[in-house]
Order: sequence, then C-alpha cells, then structure tokens
Amino acid sequence: MASVRINSLMVSLDGYAAGSDQSASAPMGIGGEKLSAWLWETEFGQSMIGKFGGSAGVDNEWLRRGEANIGATVMGRNMFGPIRGDWPDDSWLGWWGDEPPYHHPVFVLTHFPRADIVMAGGTTFHFVTDGLEDALAKATEVAGGKDVRISGGVATVREALRKQLADELHICIVPVLLGAGEQLWENLGAWPEGYLCDKLQSSDSVAHLHFTRSAKDEATS
Amino acid sequence: MASVRINSLMVSLDGYAAGSDQSASAPMGIGGEKLSAWLWETEFGQSMIGKFGGSAGVDNEWLRRGEANIGATVMGRNMFGPIRGDWPDDSWLGWWGDEPPYHHPVFVLTHFPRADIVMAGGTTFHFVTDGLEDALAKATEVAGGKDVRISGGVATVREALRKQLADELHICIVPVLLGAGEQLWENLGAWPEGYLCDKLQSSDSVAHLHFTRSAKDEATS
Repeated sequence: MASVRINSLMVSLDGYAAGSDQSASAPMGIGGEKLSAWLWETEFGQSMIGKFGGSAGVDNEWLRRGEANIGATVMGRNMFGPIRGDWPDDSWLGWWGDEPPYHHPVFVLTHFPRADIVMAGGTTFHFVTDGLEDALAKATEVAGGKDVRISGGVATVREALRKQLADELHICIVPVLLGAGEQLWENLGAWPEGYLCDKLQSSDSVAHLHFTRSAKDEATS
Repeated sequence: MASVRINSLMVSLDGYAAGSDQSASAPMGIGGEKLSAWLWETEFGQSMIGKFGGSAGVDNEWLRRGEANIGATVMGRNMFGPIRGDWPDDSWLGWWGDEPPYHHPVFVLTHFPRADIVMAGGTTFHFVTDGLEDALAKATEVAGGKDVRISGGVATVREALRKQLADELHICIVPVLLGAGEQLWENLGAWPEGYLCDKLQSSDSVAHLHFTRSAKDEATS
C-alpha cells in the first residue's frame, strides 16, 4: 500500500518552516536559507547541485530516505513559484531549471488552471484546482505503486496533517530562530493526535523527528 | 571560573516551556505534564520521588549532568510558587515539601521582600528584589566556586538569554504540542547571537540541544 509522506521538512526552533516574503530571489523567504545550510554540507545536498563530496552520516541518510521510493509529488502553489493569483503567461516553469530534480509527475495545487508542463528528465507538472485530496488521489494513481510525497509548502503540510492525510512526517529541527515566516505549528487541529513520534535522531547539526500515523483505518474509513 | 547554567529546560515543538494557568494543582500549567512525562521514566526522575529503578541512558545522563556541580540556584517567582503579588503570609514554602531537592542556597526573584527560609537538607530560600543580575551575583558569591543554575521559569530564562547572562543552555525538545502557555522563543532579542549550538543528541523520547555562549568576553566587558 502506497504511503503519503512528508519528508525532510526543515523547521526552526521557533516553528518556522520558511521565512517571510518569499520571492524569486528568496525561494524560502527572508532568512529561510538558515534552515538549509546543513543540507549543503551533505553528499545528498552536493549531488543536488551536481557536485561530488559532502558528508555521509545521519543527515545524509535521512535525506536519501526522504527521496527513496517516491513515484509522484504533490506541492502547494508557493512551492512551485513566487507568482500569486492567475498565471500571467506560461513562462514560469518552477524554481529548478530545465531538468527539475523530481523525475516523476508533480501535482501543483492552484486555484488557476494551467496546461501540463513536460520538462526534461521525466518531470511533468500537472496543475490541480480541486484541492489536496484530489491531488493526492491523482498522484497515487500515477505513482506506480510507489509512495507519494507532499513536498510543501507549509500551508499544504498543515492541511495534510490537520486532515490526517499524511502517513508519515519527518521534520528536521534546525537550531536557529527565524522570528517570522510560515509557522508550522499552528492551525493543526488535534494533531499530533493520531500520530506517534516513533524515531528521534540527531546529527551534529540537526534533530530529526519522525512521526507515523497510528490511526490510519479510523482516519480514512 | 563558575558558569551560569540553564539545564534540562523542557520545551514543546511549538515552543512552550510551561502550559498556561499555573496553579497549586498544576505547577507546570495546563498540559505542562506532557513536557515531563519522559523524565519519570529515567533513573534520575525516579530518584526525585524517592524511588529506585528507571532507565539509564541518554536522557538520564543529561539530567544528571544538569544537576552536577551546582552550588546555588536562581529562580523566578512563579517557579517558587503560584502566589502572585505580595506574600499574604509566610505559609508558602515552595512546591517541594519539607526537604527541597536543592540542598544549597536558592535565590527567588520577587518584587516583594520576604525573610529567608531555612529548609531541611541544606536548602535556604533567599528572596531578591533587585533583579536577575543581583541574584546571580549573590548566588555566585555563595556557590563556593561551583556553578549557578537558573532553573526557570520561562520569563527568567528569556531574560538571561536576552542579556547573555547564561553561559550555557540545554533544552529538551519534547515531541508534543501545547498550543498555549509560556513561550520560550519570543522576546529573546538577538539570541542566539553570541551562542553556539555545540551538541545535539536524541533519545527515543527527547531531542537534547546544548548551546554555549561563545562571546563571553564581549558580553561581560
């Protein structure tokens, strides 16, 4: 049975998973780069930018695990780009250049319809206007038996947790304060009810916490 | 050189180090007991209530370390008791019964003078009306070369961090949400500027993060 997974979600001590004022030049908002500094130290992070080297170890293993066995991705509009409102044209193709690192179907939540975008390397962006549940159903259908990842942003993650749509959540607590931005720990309803924190592990830089939905049958029946 | 230490400060994912509405029957506020559930599983926690048994291991080691080499304690008024405003009489002697677990001088911050209280087992409560710096100076003086611990509550901890009065901070991040209470991560000024997160370690229950003041000379000169 395919799982819906939220992996490698970086969050500051004060609960922000992105800074404020996201823009084309600040994809993670103001100060958001503090959340990901550790990522670039890892082998996984280096490979994301086409380089070799970087550290193996705890952080790298969690990052690799987060990418493994994913057949489709669901993301919120802001994760795809900084444009708000209707699409002015078809020029914005995501943050990731010609060949995005997904290599599978990606479902982007939006209120504004747009034609599919077929990118190099196997990534196709589909635009879904009927909400998160619909996007997850479509993603599951094309994931070929693999898992579906919700990659963000924060509002989408919160919705998935509040509605108990995610089977697992892996957060990376980074020992910094952002002071403002996208707050993860609000508007979560009864969460973590229905979830169990079943794994904690720390590197020298980050504390990894993993939650598994413990009440899947009740939540989906 | 004696250090000023904040140890074993428990904080929820959403940043609360105590619940709301502290009272005589809820010393850590509503829901605050969620923060300390893991503590009672340890050898250290069991010994606090006069019992044997409990787990050794990571959590226990951090808790033991937090108590080691402490010659005096400073605490805020709310850490001493639920009474607000002037002392109605001298009947409140703290949360801890006849023999508090300190066994050294304890300096309680208050706006309302009160005579020292000599308890069994070596604990004396002193009431300090001239603020945190004065309490730390007095505590350092009587600590006999050992360290001084700031044991809480949250407002006192925040003041110590904001003013860079603490040499070290050890927090225990507990994977629960409180939703309301005493928020640790606000009104901290430029913190963690001047501090380095030099140790992260997790047990199955708790993520321990340790910060050391890296700029002591600048801060105190």
